[in-house]
Amino acid sequence: MNNDLKNVYFVACGGSLVDLYNSYYFLKNNSKSISTGWYTANEFVYDFPIQLGKNTLVILCSHSGNTEETVNAAILSRKKGAYAIGLSYNKDSNLFKEVDNSILYEWGDKFKVSRNPMATVLEISVRILNKIEKYQHFKVFLDELDNIDKVVQNAIALVQARAKKFAVNYKDENFFQIIGSGATYGQAYGFAICSLMEMQWINATAIHSGEYFHGPFEVADNESMYVVLESLGRTRSLDERAKLFITSHSKKVEILDAKELGLDLINATVVEYFNPILFYTVLSEYRSQLAIARQHPLEVRRYMGKMSY
Amino acid sequence: MNNDLKNVYFVACGGSLVDLYNSYYFLKNNSKSISTGWYTANEFVYDFPIQLGKNTLVILCSHSGNTEETVNAAILSRKKGAYAIGLSYNKDSNLFKEVDNSILYEWGDKFKVSRNPMATVLEISVRILNKIEKYQHFKVFLDELDNIDKVVQNAIALVQARAKKFAVNYKDENFFQIIGSGATYGQAYGFAICSLMEMQWINATAIHSGEYFHGPFEVADNESMYVVLESLGRTRSLDERAKLFITSHSKKVEILDAKELGLDLINATVVEYFNPILFYTVLSEYRSQLAIARQHPLEVRRYMGKMSY
Repeated sequence: MNNDLKNVYFVACGGSLVDLYNSYYFLKNNSKSISTGWYTANEFVYDFPIQLGKNTLVILCSHSGNTEETVNAAILSRKKGAYAIGLSYNKDSNLFKEVDNSILYEWGDKFKVSRNPMATVLEISVRILNKIEKYQHFKVFLDELDNIDKVVQNAIALVQARAKKFAVNYKDENFFQIIGSGATYGQAYGFAICSLMEMQWINATAIHSGEYFHGPFEVADNESMYVVLESLGRTRSLDERAKLFITSHSKKVEILDAKELGLDLINATVVEYFNPILFYTVLSEYRSQLAIARQHPLEVRRYMGKMSY
Repeated sequence: MNNDLKNVYFVACGGSLVDLYNSYYFLKNNSKSISTGWYTANEFVYDFPIQLGKNTLVILCSHSGNTEETVNAAILSRKKGAYAIGLSYNKDSNLFKEVDNSILYEWGDKFKVSRNPMATVLEISVRILNKIEKYQHFKVFLDELDNIDKVVQNAIALVQARAKKFAVNYKDENFFQIIGSGATYGQAYGFAICSLMEMQWINATAIHSGEYFHGPFEVADNESMYVVLESLGRTRSLDERAKLFITSHSKKVEILDAKELGLDLINATVVEYFNPILFYTVLSEYRSQLAIARQHPLEVRRYMGKMSY
């Protein structure tokens, strides 16, 4: 990898793109010298930034490792002289054939969340920033990566009953609004397009809690269904403001508060970037319960992988 | 303004933020040296990038000029040493008191679209890029800014009948999916959160056509309501792919094709950035017709500006 690193681009599709949002957000706000971007792979392939070149690192992720747009983005990146890191769950993936560095990640309930792709890429991003600029919270960050699994395990236990109640109460809703901010916004987006639209065939949208009062709140009434992701960290006041309005204008609201879920065990200087790791896991419990209550297994698809498109 | 410009940040809320997406997209993909960001104002205020400083230009926009979060973002920017440009329709705005340079823009049917905030900021962005790096399509760009009004006027005439038909046919739909890519994605987002959610109290979401097949398409059935924004330029094939799937899986589809609307009169080297200017105007005709068909005037609000929140 080139020592004169100028840009880091995060490129993937759907759920894998969601996994990269946290790292993008971290570098965007913390790096003094690097510029960064977060791209759905096919837009990157067809309309890439002119800065893409020998001073660029491109981080690509595909769970199957064979997402065509992501593989093409890797090929383009290397053709332009960039250094490409690919992450996948599949050691025989096409993606691994087109990158400079392959990372096979762990996945599933029996593995630590700190070894999932989201945390793995975050750790890479933090190490890169520290190597280039000396990141002032580097040591704390690595310590907390060791602690996040315990927090997440506690939170999973904590939400079992309420996730079940949520699923039973709201299984027939046909539109969900997922509210969040900061690094967590990626999870709001991911829960809407992957967990609800893809896996449950339910209409949904993600709304940034900072944007909520500039348009989207006009639809709010007693029938509106909300999931509010209340983060710990710098943008918490945005989520709290949205929560206050939503809970007084709709009766169908599920609040997931990172503080109440135990994330305040993580040091305040770096807690922002642990919100998405917590929320991903907790929301996975919610979607599992929804799948049971709706008798709609999470792995059922009608189009994806079943036809050409 | 500092001659050693390193970052340009675009900061606003809601509809004004939408107006800035085009310029953000332009600089993100065309600048060899500048890093850029697009922020909802309150997130910027609470969690701003560490690069914000004396080598930064911040462009802020507020139609009323008094959006509190945007004014606060201007104050923060100047406190950090950045140069702030503010745009508003209101010459007595609070925003103008907190910026280094104020731009009072024109607004409404009797003014040229090239003097609206979206085109004004785009022209500023193009001029900045040319000054710093010599932008190779500079002259063509300025020429086409002179031509876009004619294209837009023709398109307005062209869509009258179909916008009316659309409004009558779909006035009772309760969820719209707006599909787009490239610089146009900002318009998909804006039509969803401002035109539909804010002005018509209809649920809606914006979906990037590159992300469509990675989750959102699983909800598609004959009852799904889509508006597809088909851009001219590098990402057109993404929109075409989504259009092909959508038109064969749903009967409720409105296609707005920039080519069919006459945007191919604009030079292909710069056409990307004229898509949003065209689509904004054309979609405004659609929302006007929806307002008539639904007997729900565009300016009616139930919360915005009517209560404290």
